[in-house]
Amino acid sequence: MAPVRLDEALFASPDPSNTPPSNSRTVSVGIVVQKYGGSSVSDAASIKRVAQRIVATKKAGHDVVVVVSAMGDTTDELLDLAHEVSPLPDGREMDMLLTAGERISMALLAMAIGNLGQQAQSFTGSQAGVITDSVHGKAKIIDVTPGRIRKAVGEGAVAIVAGFQGVSQDSKDITTLGRGGSDTTAVALAAALDAEVCEIYTDVDGIFTADPRIVPNARRIPLLSYEETLEMAANGAKILHLRCVEYARRNLMPIHVRSSFSTKEGTWVLSTERIAERLADEVPTEQEASVMEQAIISGVAHDRSESKITVVGVPDKVGEAARIFEVLAEAQINIDMIVQNVSAAATGLTDISFTLPRADGQTAMTALARLKDEVGYAQLQYDDGVGKVSLIGAGMRTNPGISARFFKSIADAGVNIEMISTSEIRISVVVNEAQIDDAVSAAHAAFDLEADEVEAVVYGGTGR
Amino acid sequence: MAPVRLDEALFASPDPSNTPPSNSRTVSVGIVVQKYGGSSVSDAASIKRVAQRIVATKKAGHDVVVVVSAMGDTTDELLDLAHEVSPLPDGREMDMLLTAGERISMALLAMAIGNLGQQAQSFTGSQAGVITDSVHGKAKIIDVTPGRIRKAVGEGAVAIVAGFQGVSQDSKDITTLGRGGSDTTAVALAAALDAEVCEIYTDVDGIFTADPRIVPNARRIPLLSYEETLEMAANGAKILHLRCVEYARRNLMPIHVRSSFSTKEGTWVLSTERIAERLADEVPTEQEASVMEQAIISGVAHDRSESKITVVGVPDKVGEAARIFEVLAEAQINIDMIVQNVSAAATGLTDISFTLPRADGQTAMTALARLKDEVGYAQLQYDDGVGKVSLIGAGMRTNPGISARFFKSIADAGVNIEMISTSEIRISVVVNEAQIDDAVSAAHAAFDLEADEVEAVVYGGTGR
Repeated sequence: MAPVRLDEALFASPDPSNTPPSNSRTVSVGIVVQKYGGSSVSDAASIKRVAQRIVATKKAGHDVVVVVSAMGDTTDELLDLAHEVSPLPDGREMDMLLTAGERISMALLAMAIGNLGQQAQSFTGSQAGVITDSVHGKAKIIDVTPGRIRKAVGEGAVAIVAGFQGVSQDSKDITTLGRGGSDTTAVALAAALDAEVCEIYTDVDGIFTADPRIVPNARRIPLLSYEETLEMAANGAKILHLRCVEYARRNLMPIHVRSSFSTKEGTWVLSTERIAERLADEVPTEQEASVMEQAIISGVAHDRSESKITVVGVPDKVGEAARIFEVLAEAQINIDMIVQNVSAAATGLTDISFTLPRADGQTAMTALARLKDEVGYAQLQYDDGVGKVSLIGAGMRTNPGISARFFKSIADAGVNIEMISTSEIRISVVVNEAQIDDAVSAAHAAFDLEADEVEAVVYGGTGR
Repeated sequence: MAPVRLDEALFASPDPSNTPPSNSRTVSVGIVVQKYGGSSVSDAASIKRVAQRIVATKKAGHDVVVVVSAMGDTTDELLDLAHEVSPLPDGREMDMLLTAGERISMALLAMAIGNLGQQAQSFTGSQAGVITDSVHGKAKIIDVTPGRIRKAVGEGAVAIVAGFQGVSQDSKDITTLGRGGSDTTAVALAAALDAEVCEIYTDVDGIFTADPRIVPNARRIPLLSYEETLEMAANGAKILHLRCVEYARRNLMPIHVRSSFSTKEGTWVLSTERIAERLADEVPTEQEASVMEQAIISGVAHDRSESKITVVGVPDKVGEAARIFEVLAEAQINIDMIVQNVSAAATGLTDISFTLPRADGQTAMTALARLKDEVGYAQLQYDDGVGKVSLIGAGMRTNPGISARFFKSIADAGVNIEMISTSEIRISVVVNEAQIDDAVSAAHAAFDLEADEVEAVVYGGTGR
């Protein structure tokens, strides 16, 4: 029963020919794009606090473009209303409905800034030139033509842009970008405006070596490459969404993840080249020196939203496994890890296990059940009690012994490893969901990621 | 001390050369524009009920375009939020904020219609081609270019349009139309689409001879001319707003005011010619015959939002009164009635009283106080305890004795008349606010406007 390791080479190391398109991002005064999430603008008091922060940035000499999410629970409340009037609301109308949320928060924020004596104008996604495809609910950005934003900023105003929304190129209908949409709007606008930096404000001080709710002495990571951030986002870290990091990486847009509740430096997400430049240019502080030594491992991510399906007794013939994954692909299900047991010679049968997002579990089981006669497997098993723990670090590809130390730490904590997958900068294991916290803590300790003192503070709500 | 009567000839009788531009409105199947106010879409249940009504109209063979207001108290809640973040919110941003209200109701309504198996698409004011000037908060419609609405309707969909909002011609900023904006949107769209009729849905069964909350046996008026409706709207009747009726009159668009809670016929607002045609074409029902006899008086309107300012001891010289009204005009205050007492020969001083909306009282007093030295009056008196009762009817211009009967009925009820103004189809008196109900009831009875039995039912909320 040796597990087959399937490497994920989705996120290759960056093309070394990628250099920043211009020097404009390094001049001291330029455009700063700031993105504030729903927990940062949950009520009038928060909105006023964010307004003060924006005005301070403007007074420091920057042009400021702000991307804002809907206030607190607005989106959930609108979703509830929609389901009260229709069990299956139309996608176009759902987007029309949900975009009202950002409209409210952005107008209020502009008013609050105006009240501080600084001119501000709010813009819908459409007005800001966020052009998307026509896939309602999860539209992709095709182009950003921020002419009106440039004009407003040129006239000295702060431009407030609705996150999460755009307008479709073909039908001119209002679209929403789906999960992570506001972060992606911010990075896309920053790239189109050739901004210095895209600041993503949240309710923690940056990206930490592990979730501070599990590992209280987790350490803030001062510098992180796009690739490591992608691995973290793809493996359960909630701070930045995959799409947003992918967009930033393609456009080499620096991201600064920081808290809207403090003025501390957060985590800079940069290309590996920019990180190398920074570390070379600056006389390292004590903390940075310590970071350099340990740069080999960035952190431990975890994901509780996994489930596992096992197809038992599959005839070990060419094409049977392929047929299974074909059907799942047709059902639009993203498979994460796959393990195929070595077939027992006596029976000619094998078991195939794979993990997938828990939300897709029912769809996958239904699709596979229809395949029973065709493939002739014995039975299906569904387990929604699993989770994933991942060790991430750009250094691990050149460092032997990392995997061994990771597996040993988990085993020593009494946690059984069910599946394993790796990429060049990540090792992931699937474990019993109830043991995720133990596994995260053990791995975090094994790689000396702890801070000298507790520095992680979660200021606000749940960090969306 | 004889009051000077100042006639208001604002609303002259209609130009007899005005004939309907085409016959298209009289064909049996065409576009119907329906407008639903906030009380008709106050929650999910109301929205579903309105959706059923719309689908029924569509199934009857009509193309349907719907104009909808924000749900229930949404607008007030957004206003509260705005004032929490800023004491003087920017007008552009206020419009951006408030337009979120209709965005929510229209998307939910489109979903609810979709759930009944009928295709529906919602459109913002901007998408619907409602082009306005740039006066935020009370923009005027300049043009309506409903290309997308025509296309949606042509494809068989119900088009749902956000009331109360448009987009400015110059800056492309979102604007709101101010009070009565949703009714005006509906009539303007109906005119641009050459609709058969613009149906205004409310929470009463039409326009009544008096407010049914004061006069329980008030009678529904089946047919009302634009001119009489204008006088009613201008003098406190809350059902239709002045702007909307003016727009309908200019475009000869028939309005049908009716309840969203019943299927009864309501009040048709038409040109005097169309009314004459209707009455000539049809064999009159008993009720209509009774209406014809009494057509001379349409109803009694009242307005509780008046206040009165008296400038005491004004030197009776040419130009002094003019200076007073000049200053008020500069402060954008609409004066309603004016009374100038005959000056006492001994002193050469006179008193000038005028009425104005209570909301403008403070502004007016401040403007006049600054004028004290220049004009040299003795003192200012402010009375916010007054109201206005108006008798309206196209017939009164050719019927002597109407005024006398009106004044006598009010005097007999023990109510003192403070000021009087008249137009060709209206007589208004200012009385103590506490006596408005008595005056309305007395006048209503004096002109035999009562129904044989109580027919007025107020179904929903406050009727906005």
